[in-house]
Amino acid sequence: MADGQIKVDGDPIFEGIEPIRYEGPTSDNPLAYRYYDKDRVVLGKRMEDHLRMAVCYWHTFCWDGYDIFGAGTFARDWHSPANDRAAADRKMQAAFEFFTKLGTPYYCFHDVDITEASPTPSDLSNNFARAVDRLGAYQEATGVKLLWGTANLFGNPRFAAGGLTNPNPEIAACAVRQIRECMDATHKLGGANYVLWGGREGYDTLLNTDLSRELSNFGRFLAMVVEHKHKIGFKGKILIEPKPHEPMYHQYDFDTATVYGFLKRFGLEKEVHVNIEPNHATLAGHSFAHELATAVSLGIMGSIDINSGNYQNGWDTDQFNLDLRDITLALIELLPSGGLDTGGFNFDAKVRRQSSTAEDLFYAHVGGVDTLARALLAAADVIEKGEIAALKAKRYAGWTESEIGRMMLSEGASLESIADVAAKQNIDAGHVSGRQEYLENLINHSIK
Amino acid sequence: MADGQIKVDGDPIFEGIEPIRYEGPTSDNPLAYRYYDKDRVVLGKRMEDHLRMAVCYWHTFCWDGYDIFGAGTFARDWHSPANDRAAADRKMQAAFEFFTKLGTPYYCFHDVDITEASPTPSDLSNNFARAVDRLGAYQEATGVKLLWGTANLFGNPRFAAGGLTNPNPEIAACAVRQIRECMDATHKLGGANYVLWGGREGYDTLLNTDLSRELSNFGRFLAMVVEHKHKIGFKGKILIEPKPHEPMYHQYDFDTATVYGFLKRFGLEKEVHVNIEPNHATLAGHSFAHELATAVSLGIMGSIDINSGNYQNGWDTDQFNLDLRDITLALIELLPSGGLDTGGFNFDAKVRRQSSTAEDLFYAHVGGVDTLARALLAAADVIEKGEIAALKAKRYAGWTESEIGRMMLSEGASLESIADVAAKQNIDAGHVSGRQEYLENLINHSIK
Amino acid sequence: MADGQIKVDGDPIFEGIEPIRYEGPTSDNPLAYRYYDKDRVVLGKRMEDHLRMAVCYWHTFCWDGYDIFGAGTFARDWHSPANDRAAADRKMQAAFEFFTKLGTPYYCFHDVDITEASPTPSDLSNNFARAVDRLGAYQEATGVKLLWGTANLFGNPRFAAGGLTNPNPEIAACAVRQIRECMDATHKLGGANYVLWGGREGYDTLLNTDLSRELSNFGRFLAMVVEHKHKIGFKGKILIEPKPHEPMYHQYDFDTATVYGFLKRFGLEKEVHVNIEPNHATLAGHSFAHELATAVSLGIMGSIDINSGNYQNGWDTDQFNLDLRDITLALIELLPSGGLDTGGFNFDAKVRRQSSTAEDLFYAHVGGVDTLARALLAAADVIEKGEIAALKAKRYAGWTESEIGRMMLSEGASLESIADVAAKQNIDAGHVSGRQEYLENLINHSIK
Amino acid sequence: MADGQIKVDGDPIFEGIEPIRYEGPTSDNPLAYRYYDKDRVVLGKRMEDHLRMAVCYWHTFCWDGYDIFGAGTFARDWHSPANDRAAADRKMQAAFEFFTKLGTPYYCFHDVDITEASPTPSDLSNNFARAVDRLGAYQEATGVKLLWGTANLFGNPRFAAGGLTNPNPEIAACAVRQIRECMDATHKLGGANYVLWGGREGYDTLLNTDLSRELSNFGRFLAMVVEHKHKIGFKGKILIEPKPHEPMYHQYDFDTATVYGFLKRFGLEKEVHVNIEPNHATLAGHSFAHELATAVSLGIMGSIDINSGNYQNGWDTDQFNLDLRDITLALIELLPSGGLDTGGFNFDAKVRRQSSTAEDLFYAHVGGVDTLARALLAAADVIEKGEIAALKAKRYAGWTESEIGRMMLSEGASLESIADVAAKQNIDAGHVSGRQEYLENLINHSIK
Repeated sequence: MADGQIKVDGDPIFEGIEPIRYEGPTSDNPLAYRYYDKDRVVLGKRMEDHLRMAVCYWHTFCWDGYDIFGAGTFARDWHSPANDRAAADRKMQAAFEFFTKLGTPYYCFHDVDITEASPTPSDLSNNFARAVDRLGAYQEATGVKLLWGTANLFGNPRFAAGGLTNPNPEIAACAVRQIRECMDATHKLGGANYVLWGGREGYDTLLNTDLSRELSNFGRFLAMVVEHKHKIGFKGKILIEPKPHEPMYHQYDFDTATVYGFLKRFGLEKEVHVNIEPNHATLAGHSFAHELATAVSLGIMGSIDINSGNYQNGWDTDQFNLDLRDITLALIELLPSGGLDTGGFNFDAKVRRQSSTAEDLFYAHVGGVDTLARALLAAADVIEKGEIAALKAKRYAGWTESEIGRMMLSEGASLESIADVAAKQNIDAGHVSGRQEYLENLINHSIK
Repeated sequence: MADGQIKVDGDPIFEGIEPIRYEGPTSDNPLAYRYYDKDRVVLGKRMEDHLRMAVCYWHTFCWDGYDIFGAGTFARDWHSPANDRAAADRKMQAAFEFFTKLGTPYYCFHDVDITEASPTPSDLSNNFARAVDRLGAYQEATGVKLLWGTANLFGNPRFAAGGLTNPNPEIAACAVRQIRECMDATHKLGGANYVLWGGREGYDTLLNTDLSRELSNFGRFLAMVVEHKHKIGFKGKILIEPKPHEPMYHQYDFDTATVYGFLKRFGLEKEVHVNIEPNHATLAGHSFAHELATAVSLGIMGSIDINSGNYQNGWDTDQFNLDLRDITLALIELLPSGGLDTGGFNFDAKVRRQSSTAEDLFYAHVGGVDTLARALLAAADVIEKGEIAALKAKRYAGWTESEIGRMMLSEGASLESIADVAAKQNIDAGHVSGRQEYLENLINHSIK
Repeated sequence: MADGQIKVDGDPIFEGIEPIRYEGPTSDNPLAYRYYDKDRVVLGKRMEDHLRMAVCYWHTFCWDGYDIFGAGTFARDWHSPANDRAAADRKMQAAFEFFTKLGTPYYCFHDVDITEASPTPSDLSNNFARAVDRLGAYQEATGVKLLWGTANLFGNPRFAAGGLTNPNPEIAACAVRQIRECMDATHKLGGANYVLWGGREGYDTLLNTDLSRELSNFGRFLAMVVEHKHKIGFKGKILIEPKPHEPMYHQYDFDTATVYGFLKRFGLEKEVHVNIEPNHATLAGHSFAHELATAVSLGIMGSIDINSGNYQNGWDTDQFNLDLRDITLALIELLPSGGLDTGGFNFDAKVRRQSSTAEDLFYAHVGGVDTLARALLAAADVIEKGEIAALKAKRYAGWTESEIGRMMLSEGASLESIADVAAKQNIDAGHVSGRQEYLENLINHSIK
Repeated sequence: MADGQIKVDGDPIFEGIEPIRYEGPTSDNPLAYRYYDKDRVVLGKRMEDHLRMAVCYWHTFCWDGYDIFGAGTFARDWHSPANDRAAADRKMQAAFEFFTKLGTPYYCFHDVDITEASPTPSDLSNNFARAVDRLGAYQEATGVKLLWGTANLFGNPRFAAGGLTNPNPEIAACAVRQIRECMDATHKLGGANYVLWGGREGYDTLLNTDLSRELSNFGRFLAMVVEHKHKIGFKGKILIEPKPHEPMYHQYDFDTATVYGFLKRFGLEKEVHVNIEPNHATLAGHSFAHELATAVSLGIMGSIDINSGNYQNGWDTDQFNLDLRDITLALIELLPSGGLDTGGFNFDAKVRRQSSTAEDLFYAHVGGVDTLARALLAAADVIEKGEIAALKAKRYAGWTESEIGRMMLSEGASLESIADVAAKQNIDAGHVSGRQEYLENLINHSIK
């Protein structure tokens, strides 16, 4: 096959795996969808349009199963020790065959995911340009779309002390170069968003870190990213992905509230949104629903990297999320705001290292897709019933319906004027039940 | 003794305890200071002026040793089951005797700490006014000063769903009333700051919570607090105390970065600062030093509630902090910025429930005071040697000294222009050691 | 009503609450069971007999909603500040009305839960004897049975440093007295088990703790408990409840594996079993399923205190457990071993402090009961399908079916003989997929 | 250099680094010891004999600075991509030069650390035999001794599901072969102990795990290890290293108490001891001191892998431990029992990934060595003063000195007889202060 040509048919890599189809809840076929029926309309929108699911390149096609305690366990057809051009091309073939067989509409990638090993920045630049052309051809051939692209500013040893927040301006310049090229490529490929994951933006010890300079540089470069977006006419969202720790001792994009404060400080809160990941949420001491609710409330909700940790291991395990209740609770926060706009649900999840065959990739994604679909049905049921919303409205009614509530929110109200009314009227109100357990029972009732 | 009179001499409550004096590092007297020599000049300032230490009313004088599993273990001279006026008065006598014997210059209180049990808001108002007068008399008689006051918006059952963020405006009005009266009292008593601790501002479940409204109300009322401060001419700082969890599932003032974002959103970041507590820092997934460095960097550093948790128990244990290295690392972040301004080190720490005698209160505070003093000496040694600062300066020198660094920070630089330079010059810089262990060794070397 | 008489009809305390009935999955009645149909036969046994559910006295009837930050929020009909005899009697009436209306077969109590305030050990002894008689009468009148009793060795200040592990033998003697009386009462009431919860058996600091003596005393007294059980002819199980932390910094009964080691050390592993609590499991870094699997594997499985924490708060939150998947995974470990013998599912769970009405007690328990029932159906479905068991059997088949497997387990096999075979045969076997995601999907498929 | 020859002089790898010497506390030389004066006698023993320090092969010589997010950052003289024989030999030369310059008496290794890449078990066997001969020659030439050896049963993909607990007997046989060869080599090299680190002995999901079989196999093979030790006449201790999580979701050797229970179950508690690591202790929810105190109390104390985590990151960070107080608290538990017997302090610690030069290896170890030495001096001071021991003795005196205490411990005492005495004597004892803060202050006082 000549350079530049792509391969979308013949010789399947995942032999024996048929495209995954919807078969309904009673199916016992492990490679069928039981809940994900993409054209089914839920709350006025097709399931596919609600969930906008994407497969990620890195965990699913790049990772060979290694961890810090041992070598890779996966013998992927498309891997080779040298990670040369032929291997990169075969990996791309595998990826698009996978996307197509899974039937999800989007994918995501880092620049280095799609290229062969590239010793220098210029090598990467050249190899990336070629690989992007091939992605374009695959997209056209398959109809699969790009949810977002991102530059890997953490894998190469030069980024040990960060990319955009590196103490060395030369290294930051390398980071800027990668971002520019990856943004341009994302734009060219019609990507719906562009993501900056914190990577190694953070610190290992304050003793060698100038926190103020690093954050100020970060703010400055982020403003350039936004400026560049407008310059090239990219219509997608710029997204930052919060994470509290790992690989750095402290990551600057700790959680959604921290990112908001950072954006607000640099006047970027209307331009940059967040890409929320459940496993990062729980590592930061939050529920997945909390991070979504916070982002929605602050107007910076962007996209979701769906996965989960387990609650016993204190690092990013990136497991496929099968927790129906947790996702339902999150969707209840998300859907009333209009749901995902340019964002999607990207499976930033990896099979366990012991799940070593290519089939495991399918089992895992099928389970992940179906859990999202089932949680969507549950959340829609909760929303359509309306009982939770009604109870909440009643709980806060005093702020609009009572005299004291309206007065407190009126212009000119002051600490003094409110305190005076409270004193004069001898206000001595008591607590009213918050009905937490009653409300929690409603969620389980809607999970079917 | 007639109402309004105070008692500052005769019949000591802490019989047999002499005022604590500095005896130097070799002293074996458990009730002497080994490092805290208040007039000793360190980095150009008296120790007392650096540390501005305060004793807190609640843990030390109000708490009877109860916990969620059992009844109080302390048989304090000044406690009575009824918590009547006589008990409150005796408690105040004990407090000022303690402050005086310890020789620390400040104290802190909640409104309800200093009054008898007060069934209604109006009872509290009246009892509080009387108690404040008595505090004033004690301050005058002893020279002890008020570091800050605060209103307790979490103990009374009415505040189960929050104070300023309560769904019920009547309850929020009660909260406003308490804040107004406590701010006025703090001002009257010459307090150096006024604190709002999050208390129950947060939520237990999103299912009954209107996050947007609660935070918007909170912002609005905080603006009123600031306005009131200016109106009454209070010169101290308004402080918010970050805490991630407990008593609520989620506390709105999660950490310093979250508080900054909140303040910035409501345009209050110049008016409101943070009161940082190490135990809250670690519960939020941060080091104490991180929270200080963040507050300094964002310009919102206020005061410190010094204590520590232990790292095995996941709740606020409020132990006396004896971790020399941890405090030294924190002071290294704080001192170069000018140190505490109106803030201080408030011992928001409690003896363990098994430490049931009044002597234990002294042992604990003496240990706490001395640890702060010794850490101050260590931090001053690090700063005076200057090696860490010099290495840090060198690490970031490229941003001011190299052409590429200056260009990247110059006006007009863009993603494109930087990327172009990087490409043209084939920039391919490598990582340089961050020398973490070398730097960490310097800290231990300065702890003497 | 004369002393000794009980009240089981007339004047209901929970007015307007009808007995909870099974109405099927589609019912929208918040006070009906959707899944708990007690006579429905699952895996050859009635649901009621599988689950053996109990309501606990302490959280549901004793607790007034106080926490370490504030006073009680519940205005229970049966509470009084004095906690006098009349209050204790009314509490018992409420309890049995509740048990009866809920329709669960068992309850659990601490000695001090059922008595009025009892200043001295002898007061407690007398009041307890009377209260036990009343319990007996209520049991007879209602048919409700006792799952287990236990002595409270942590609430009274005397137990600040532990009960059976107290440094002071006099306090340990008080603990022994309470245990003896509570065991005798449990026996008299036909209790199915007797529980020792760790309470304050543990330490706050090693600096004042003789670990060896405390554990040796604990072992000695536990042997006496077992001896006493046989002496009085009590046929129920003696149970220890693992918990890692709280109230003590370290609790001796850290987790199931720790308890096993302790029992084995004192030769009690056949006599004493464990009472497992999910919230304690997760605080110890384990899943609920892990603790059950460990107990089953070690032959010490006893009973379950069903509840859950949330994963963001690091203390025992004792929430009602609505996590269908988590309970299903646990039941899959439990049921194949024969399930609960004398044990049961005790709702050691409390409504949130904001859920302040008596109705909330019902909502919470109904949700808890139904979640158990639904998880039982899911676990039964998994077990009946048999796919997981079959895959597991196949995975380990080599140990019985292959020559090398049988040889390695044969008598006389040694490190040397096995190593020699491995060398001689050049054994170089590779990893086979563990199919984790495939298996996890099966669980969600069985949750209906 | 011909095969089999070693190189101990000429061409140093660490050029410019002189042997580290003791220069006393006031030295500002970052490559000198301030506290570690190996011949100084403390509590009747030389410092070197107390601490028996070892350098580990894996972190210090094998690791290239890679992590799960990026490639290696260290450009070690002795590394080569191929990991061929020449590289392995040069690594060994570097290791012994390092040991010698550091001046610590011991080292530790895994079998695979010292060999070139070995595709098959038989390759490993052959390469290992050769490398062991070279180790022997180096030991003889330098006087450096082996603290312990261990077999790596986790790095090779075949061990993804465990070594001794693998579902596949063929893989377990490979594990047995490695252990046998590594034990024989350790014996040959005069090693003081042999260690089994849990590696991947544990599980990722219970759904594919037969817990009972895996633990029973583990017990069986451990018995064979003990048998083999006696057969070959190895006099060192067999050690198990507890760890709660990572790499597996659950590690079987969770903590010291768990290991004890496991040993006791298989009758091995007199034959196998524990190798305790502070970072593993804290990940398990324990303090370092707790794990030591537990091991001492249960009679299974073996050796120490000294390092620390940080308390914000929930994985094994293996940092050099500079926490003087933490180590002092641990030594107070260890020293009175006689201290380390065949065990030692092995620096199972790695420089941060950003500390990329060979000098950093020296800085880190010098800091680690000195912290141990300084903590030893502090612990000795506490022990020599005797105040903590005296207070503890007094606290428990009742068990030997009071009538009730003696009676409770006498033969024939029963629940009944003790309860009867308590009732008859109306025993109503109260809590006495545990003096925690007083005691904690004493520790800081001894840190000089």
